[in-house]
Amino acid sequence: MSQLVREIGEFAVIDRLRRILPPSMRESPSVDLGIGDDAASWIPTPDKRSVISTDALIEGNHFRLDWTDWRSLGFKALAVNLSDIAAMGATPVLATITLSLTGDERVGDLEDLYRGLADIGKPHGVVIAGGDIVRDRHGVSIGVTVIGEVDPAKIVLRRGARPGDLIAVTGSLGASAAGLRLLANPELARRSATAGLLIGAQLRPQPRIALGKLLAGWGATAAMDLSDGLVSDLPRLLGASEMDGQVDVDRLPVLPAIRALFPAEWEMLAMTGGEDYELLFTIPPDCVDVAQHEASESGATVTVIGKVAVRIGPVPRMRVTRQGLDLPLPAGGWNHFG
Amino acid sequence: MSQLVREIGEFAVIDRLRRILPPSMRESPSVDLGIGDDAASWIPTPDKRSVISTDALIEGNHFRLDWTDWRSLGFKALAVNLSDIAAMGATPVLATITLSLTGDERVGDLEDLYRGLADIGKPHGVVIAGGDIVRDRHGVSIGVTVIGEVDPAKIVLRRGARPGDLIAVTGSLGASAAGLRLLANPELARRSATAGLLIGAQLRPQPRIALGKLLAGWGATAAMDLSDGLVSDLPRLLGASEMDGQVDVDRLPVLPAIRALFPAEWEMLAMTGGEDYELLFTIPPDCVDVAQHEASESGATVTVIGKVAVRIGPVPRMRVTRQGLDLPLPAGGWNHFG
Repeated sequence: MSQLVREIGEFAVIDRLRRILPPSMRESPSVDLGIGDDAASWIPTPDKRSVISTDALIEGNHFRLDWTDWRSLGFKALAVNLSDIAAMGATPVLATITLSLTGDERVGDLEDLYRGLADIGKPHGVVIAGGDIVRDRHGVSIGVTVIGEVDPAKIVLRRGARPGDLIAVTGSLGASAAGLRLLANPELARRSATAGLLIGAQLRPQPRIALGKLLAGWGATAAMDLSDGLVSDLPRLLGASEMDGQVDVDRLPVLPAIRALFPAEWEMLAMTGGEDYELLFTIPPDCVDVAQHEASESGATVTVIGKVAVRIGPVPRMRVTRQGLDLPLPAGGWNHFG
Repeated sequence: MSQLVREIGEFAVIDRLRRILPPSMRESPSVDLGIGDDAASWIPTPDKRSVISTDALIEGNHFRLDWTDWRSLGFKALAVNLSDIAAMGATPVLATITLSLTGDERVGDLEDLYRGLADIGKPHGVVIAGGDIVRDRHGVSIGVTVIGEVDPAKIVLRRGARPGDLIAVTGSLGASAAGLRLLANPELARRSATAGLLIGAQLRPQPRIALGKLLAGWGATAAMDLSDGLVSDLPRLLGASEMDGQVDVDRLPVLPAIRALFPAEWEMLAMTGGEDYELLFTIPPDCVDVAQHEASESGATVTVIGKVAVRIGPVPRMRVTRQGLDLPLPAGGWNHFG
């Protein structure tokens, strides 16, 4: 039987978790204090801009412990923050982890969570520079803060989209939301040969760090990561850029397996499902070929889904079309798109 | 009636809170993105080391909404993180705020919380560079991450204490714990002329940023901030330095009001109460006069409470003496000291 957190206490747990990390994730030539002092410290790379992103996963809201394993939970908690770093075109440097625990967790489960942090953090060169454990009798949550660095000339913001730019996404949309449906419907999952892939997209999203670093070189004019779904996220990018935009549902990159499993819902999953952690960006038309070519060289895809237009009203307007015709805004707005 | 969070939604709340901040806390010449993109970014000062500290306050564990006002809660959430930055001898630059909310909070209360962030953040030059709001149906928590900078020659770590160094603290001990007792005992608080001062120490602790920057110049060999109480924190400093130490209870700086209000408990409050957010540091004997003089020039005090000794066992040993005689370790250890 694994010991419980409350049996060995905060500091023994932090020490146990630290040992789970590979040496490259405990310190690096520039991050040299790591877990243990009042604050971690690092040497910023000269002439780079530093970036910071913070995001928390809350039990019952962002995850269910009966639907995820602890290792995947650690993976996802770090991955969703790395995705924000990717959208800035930056390289991650270090992360701090705040665990809120009831005390009844098994230390072995938390070690699995740290194994998940290592699964995604090690290949991206992330040092875990600090760990804080606080007691919360209501449930588990994991707060992650990631620091990254970017060449100031390579940073891509949400503002910057221009009329006539194309709207594009990396990878495919809706897989994570489809995976969540399958977790809620084990019977359907058992009948599907692609359930593992879709559930994997939900539990272990891959942040697009390498593609993010290419964005500026492609000439991308604005970018963000897709966390809340296209109908929530694209208006934010358009709003920051003071533009309108149009998306063609026929062009959405959606896996055939999702269309087959959810014939009535795949468009909704792709438009509103969220948690894709793909990059949404705008790019001048004459730059798209290079972007698609370079993405394919790293095994990825770039799909054009629409176009930026001049703002005509006081708030950003996102038209959704099928074969050139506008789809009506559903009652209740796009959050009930379907 | 103030609107509720769930009535206006995450993004409207973030926008309302941003407006509460004074302009100097929304961006600065080096922190230029602020709230709104995927990540905030800043330009590190050349030749400085960056430091990061993160800490969360959880309802029911770190605070009770019937014992604090929202403005004080915001103040304290940032102050306890600034205290970690102070202990590194660093200057704070920016902070990110993660609010976990049930949705039933009044937006006006959250605006008060941000006013509290401004009360302590503005005088210390802190920019609030990002805000994230997540739903947690169980209660309120506030996660804060602070980034600071320090001249590498001025950084003071927990390791570095040497045999013969004196052990010293800034300010006084036990006031925050005494304030907590008074919050739990309104009848006693009503009879005390100093209740306001002590409750203020609990609700609005003052991080010792200015004193922290002086530590290295004084010749301090090791330092940390006092968050968990002397009997928890000093062994950590001694452990990091691989030293033993001795503290004389007669020398503890404890306000007369605390001795009078809690005649049987003031030593316990000073030794174990925690949340003092004073600096605990070690310093060679011939450097103390300058430290005390410079502290007094900024209206603060430095009190010598003990001495560092050569490590004689496998774990750090902290002797507690009265008039030169060792006090027995209480049953249950120092956490039940009394």
